[in-house]
Amino acid sequence: MASKKATSLSTDPYKGVRDFYPEEQAELNYILSVWRSVCEKFGYQEYHASILEPTELYHGKTSEEIVNEQTYNFKDRGDRDVTLRPEMTPSVARMVAAKRKELQFPLRWYSIPNVFRYERPQRGRLREHWQLNADLFGVSNLEAEVEIVSLAYSLMLQFGAEVDTFAIKVNSRRAVNELFASYNLSPVQQKQLRLLIDKKDKLKDFEAQVEALVGSPFSFPTTAPKDVVEIISKLKAIGIENVLYDSSLMRGFDYYTGIVFEVFDTDPQNPRSLFGGGRYDELLSIFGVDPVPTVGIAMGDVTARDFLETHNLLPEPSSKTKLFLATLSSEFVPDAQRLGATLRLKGLTVAVNLTDRKIGDQLKYADKLRIPHVIVIGADEVGSGSYKLKELKTGAEKTVTSEGIIEALA
Amino acid sequence: MASKKATSLSTDPYKGVRDFYPEEQAELNYILSVWRSVCEKFGYQEYHASILEPTELYHGKTSEEIVNEQTYNFKDRGDRDVTLRPEMTPSVARMVAAKRKELQFPLRWYSIPNVFRYERPQRGRLREHWQLNADLFGVSNLEAEVEIVSLAYSLMLQFGAEVDTFAIKVNSRRAVNELFASYNLSPVQQKQLRLLIDKKDKLKDFEAQVEALVGSPFSFPTTAPKDVVEIISKLKAIGIENVLYDSSLMRGFDYYTGIVFEVFDTDPQNPRSLFGGGRYDELLSIFGVDPVPTVGIAMGDVTARDFLETHNLLPEPSSKTKLFLATLSSEFVPDAQRLGATLRLKGLTVAVNLTDRKIGDQLKYADKLRIPHVIVIGADEVGSGSYKLKELKTGAEKTVTSEGIIEALA
Repeated sequence: MASKKATSLSTDPYKGVRDFYPEEQAELNYILSVWRSVCEKFGYQEYHASILEPTELYHGKTSEEIVNEQTYNFKDRGDRDVTLRPEMTPSVARMVAAKRKELQFPLRWYSIPNVFRYERPQRGRLREHWQLNADLFGVSNLEAEVEIVSLAYSLMLQFGAEVDTFAIKVNSRRAVNELFASYNLSPVQQKQLRLLIDKKDKLKDFEAQVEALVGSPFSFPTTAPKDVVEIISKLKAIGIENVLYDSSLMRGFDYYTGIVFEVFDTDPQNPRSLFGGGRYDELLSIFGVDPVPTVGIAMGDVTARDFLETHNLLPEPSSKTKLFLATLSSEFVPDAQRLGATLRLKGLTVAVNLTDRKIGDQLKYADKLRIPHVIVIGADEVGSGSYKLKELKTGAEKTVTSEGIIEALA
Repeated sequence: MASKKATSLSTDPYKGVRDFYPEEQAELNYILSVWRSVCEKFGYQEYHASILEPTELYHGKTSEEIVNEQTYNFKDRGDRDVTLRPEMTPSVARMVAAKRKELQFPLRWYSIPNVFRYERPQRGRLREHWQLNADLFGVSNLEAEVEIVSLAYSLMLQFGAEVDTFAIKVNSRRAVNELFASYNLSPVQQKQLRLLIDKKDKLKDFEAQVEALVGSPFSFPTTAPKDVVEIISKLKAIGIENVLYDSSLMRGFDYYTGIVFEVFDTDPQNPRSLFGGGRYDELLSIFGVDPVPTVGIAMGDVTARDFLETHNLLPEPSSKTKLFLATLSSEFVPDAQRLGATLRLKGLTVAVNLTDRKIGDQLKYADKLRIPHVIVIGADEVGSGSYKLKELKTGAEKTVTSEGIIEALA
């Protein structure tokens, strides 16, 4: 904050958020494209909402810790309380509630919002990240869970993950609630217990803490609840084998009412949760409309990228621009632009030299941008309409007409 | 704000922002896809930054009116001043300045940020909108303007606009600055004069106001400045004919230093500015690095949509889901899911019935979602592996195997 030059602004982004230069953006776009492609294969339609939401939307149903300590809240100039959305589920519930009577259920909806949390930046936990949300509204039977877990499984396969590098843990929030109720715990205590169990592996005195909270020795169930047995069997019937019951799987949000699940990396070096979801049948009631049974998942871009990087699954960087038109001198730039315009009309991606650099420097530039093909435009080419199409990687050249360029690069 | 049911939250979005239900999202996606496609045809690479920026980024170089009255500013819990970006140019200038020495110039960069302005919601002026930004960094000659105006022209054509429905106004901010300086106006007065001229058509006493500000009669130049003559001639040479000199074209931002331009709708019923841009060669100096000559444009989604709607250019709504698998009864849902999984692996977009609805209701549902083809799964289909593929629009049926489905819908 102290004295630099008065005119000199910092080039740093705001704390805890990211700048996406073209290389990082290409990686993000790869992740987004897999998300979109898989959702659309399952018949999901994209929706969107603003990052700005009335703060009251987050009262009550979402984790209190989030609303109180981890959201960006501010008052606008009209004295309205505004929040930068920390998650998408309340927004989508609001949108479905608003058109409860017009929408055609079942709804298959997905969105890729950026979401904001005010937390200490650390690996995988930035203040802003992108998050796939896919939700199936209007199906109360277990086929909904089967579809959403299949979608999660397909996401992993589409990212190139081998089936033995990940597994899907399943539990029943319904069974968890029944179990906790059998210990005579209040809703607040139940929530505290869920949070404790969520942190189980990080707590040295986990058992002591649980016993203090519950007031008696606590033990996890040893047999799977009926709904868990059933969904595992249904998933196996459609070829999804890497599913297992985990009695300690809680998932954070209060609003889950049935099956919850989590996809995790089985790497013994780095076992960790990748993403998950579950059933939340009652959320719409906060808007005073009849609830709609819903199953959803959310997956974050940072976790996805970490997984892809760890397993060496990120695609090689490449250029979307297929052709660079170099010029023998700057006098031929208008000719190159004319040829570029013709080729673009036929669908080709073409960048044109606009500088007076030497040919060698123009080719180096194209190569650094990973543009695979180059044509040099000079008097001969303009006169004859015949071009030498060069592949930079191999140096191979081919003489082509303007139409031939499209054919050669198709 | 008064007493509804205590449990009942409003389903309205925050004031001045939009919910995008799938139909609106499909329209937005169409606009975004044209933006992307045209930018990529010109060799532009996508980048992105967070909507959260340090407030100081907007001091000095952007319009003061915007920073003071029209931005969302707040203090974060670490007492940092944060702004929701009102435009993208300061962010991209910051990013380029940060890697000034590593980047390969010329840079062709585009982004589609959402930007925020705190203003009274009205047609075309929401508090949040999406905006294409395309910038060419590192070319000081007029070929840069030629490329950026060509890109603007291609955007219009790709949206389906006829060449005679729009035109491109060009002016020179350099010439404007020289003219204003000849009246001995201070920078603040020059800016006031630009703002007055921008509002010319809305002001009844325009001439009187200008004379009061300038202190003498003011007249617009009648012949085009040299750079304007030259760019119009260069554009005509590559086939862009609908370009004209407009001595009253100002463009709002302070940072323009050369050619400015604006694409406008020539409809006599509804003449209006659609989008524009210009050259800004000095902006990077605010970061204490050597400036980079730059030409850029920005186009908003709301204006684009209004233009498309007015000219009847929005595409017909359609479904990305190509096939609906109905089931004779809910017992066949797992079979339908299995077939769906097989077809998706081959790239098909398939939604599966998960309900116990009657066949007729399932077909109505598929039709309302505009899914074009349906197969009904029952015992016969499961037994034989032979399916009746029905086109809902025509009622035409075709008997196919599982492989035949892909072929028939390709």
